[in-house]
Amino acid sequence: MPLGEFDLIAKYFTRPVTRAALGIGDDCALLSPAPGMQWAVSSDMLVEGRHFLPTVSPHKLGHKALAVNLSDLAACGATPRAFTLALALPRVDEAFLQGFSDGLFALADEAGCELVGGDTTQGPLNICITVFGEVPAGQALLRSGARAGDDLYVSGTVGDARLALEAFRGTVVLERADFESTRLAMEQPQPRVALGQALRGLASSAIDVSDGLLGDLAHILRRSGVGAEVQVDAVPRSAALRRRPLAWQRTCTLAGGDDYELVFTAAPADADAVQAAARRSGVPVTRIGTVEAGPGLHLVDRDGRPVDNRFGSFDHFNAAE
Amino acid sequence: MPLGEFDLIAKYFTRPVTRAALGIGDDCALLSPAPGMQWAVSSDMLVEGRHFLPTVSPHKLGHKALAVNLSDLAACGATPRAFTLALALPRVDEAFLQGFSDGLFALADEAGCELVGGDTTQGPLNICITVFGEVPAGQALLRSGARAGDDLYVSGTVGDARLALEAFRGTVVLERADFESTRLAMEQPQPRVALGQALRGLASSAIDVSDGLLGDLAHILRRSGVGAEVQVDAVPRSAALRRRPLAWQRTCTLAGGDDYELVFTAAPADADAVQAAARRSGVPVTRIGTVEAGPGLHLVDRDGRPVDNRFGSFDHFNAAE
Repeated sequence: MPLGEFDLIAKYFTRPVTRAALGIGDDCALLSPAPGMQWAVSSDMLVEGRHFLPTVSPHKLGHKALAVNLSDLAACGATPRAFTLALALPRVDEAFLQGFSDGLFALADEAGCELVGGDTTQGPLNICITVFGEVPAGQALLRSGARAGDDLYVSGTVGDARLALEAFRGTVVLERADFESTRLAMEQPQPRVALGQALRGLASSAIDVSDGLLGDLAHILRRSGVGAEVQVDAVPRSAALRRRPLAWQRTCTLAGGDDYELVFTAAPADADAVQAAARRSGVPVTRIGTVEAGPGLHLVDRDGRPVDNRFGSFDHFNAAE
Repeated sequence: MPLGEFDLIAKYFTRPVTRAALGIGDDCALLSPAPGMQWAVSSDMLVEGRHFLPTVSPHKLGHKALAVNLSDLAACGATPRAFTLALALPRVDEAFLQGFSDGLFALADEAGCELVGGDTTQGPLNICITVFGEVPAGQALLRSGARAGDDLYVSGTVGDARLALEAFRGTVVLERADFESTRLAMEQPQPRVALGQALRGLASSAIDVSDGLLGDLAHILRRSGVGAEVQVDAVPRSAALRRRPLAWQRTCTLAGGDDYELVFTAAPADADAVQAAARRSGVPVTRIGTVEAGPGLHLVDRDGRPVDNRFGSFDHFNAAE
């Protein structure tokens, strides 16, 4: 007899709950932020063919499903505390569930983020996670705080996830080592949770790069009522991506998507403090441009010459993966 | 050119946010409970063919998607405050989105529950809502508090949603008025939010009926370490259901599912207070049995004779709708 819904929950998703007042198995989870703290809350839904390929291992998928949500908390500077998981599965597949829950809980444990509730049902594969982080009241990093003259930064490197996607699509052939390293970036992104917290009180605005660097930066600019100049050749990229032609490098870094790095702004006077925060978090950050008072996003190359902005944002309705 | 993801969000799901510190359009929503309050949190995922039929109107689907989540808050005695919506759609269908968002927001406004964030993507139709309610710290209604000797109650009537489902399945033919009234119960359930709040400090345990009365009651019994006797003919049912044979009435009321009424327990000394709470909430409640010290769920008919318990719980993996 196949496992039923309640057996599934019990077998793969029930763990002792320590922080939430009440966890899986009641109608609601009960969550109390510490005094003076707010909850930062974000929901992301992952669909096969849109957010992951059918070839991904269940373990990596479990990691990624939580990682993209933790990345939203990172962009707010919040400390991960809890999450709910709603999961639609075509059928009860124990090998999938074992790998998925292992990957999910490995990252959850690393991030100190507890599963406190959720739902399982039969249906086309769909993973919806809602994540809860704590942030001191009034100190969340927002998209709306960038000011003219601020430096513009990005964490880590960007573009590898897109390069790997193109390799899966067959539009590029990579050497084995490059394929493996970029595939890891696509399938197992590392949310910049420690960096986000370290940037509280320092970054004037922040967002995580999920739809492409320029597209996500545009959200900051619109919300903040400012423009920016980006030095496109200063955008940090991996050795694997540096081996591709410059046009590829630019497309992957500027419009790649699925990077889960942080783009943020900070006053020039805080440049040393930003680098110190990056060192404490173990994640390098690179200055890639400047916030401008006038509107618009201006791209320049290493010599200061204008570069056409033909780099659209990834749109889950109008772009096929 | 089709609407993109960001246009969709802007057109159908962006409204002024008054309560949350920050709403749709940043990486996270920021939520602060009032002093002394906890957040009650629940996530439910709705999939076509499992939780609703393709024939449902978008307006009613918008209502139901939020209603089933509000029902979880009701079962905890929490006051609805906010929700996130993650939505996968096969294609951008503006007629669907208009009806869906109208139905969703009509109930949200009635319940005082604000949309504070979410996600939209392309994929097989899937609706995942996470709902946030406030409850005074330590006062949430739980599944675990039932005590031997407590009275057992259910709100409203149960069984109509199942009867309507059977009519859609073609296993029963209903007169037009009965079809319409039971279809309304199935497609547009009314979460018992006011009753749940009125039962705080009064009910010793509570759960909402989503998978069938006896199946959900079994969760209370297991969590509370008790048993119960249920008078199956005392379970309240509609006039439409009373017109069916007794065996149908029992199956639909005891194992129907999708009722979204509250099952709860309370001390006999509080019987008058329970009825007063029900009157204040505008929802009748009916005593249907007694909590027992010994384990197990015993069914009796109106004459006190044992009735076989052949009424399984609805299981989203092992039952086809």
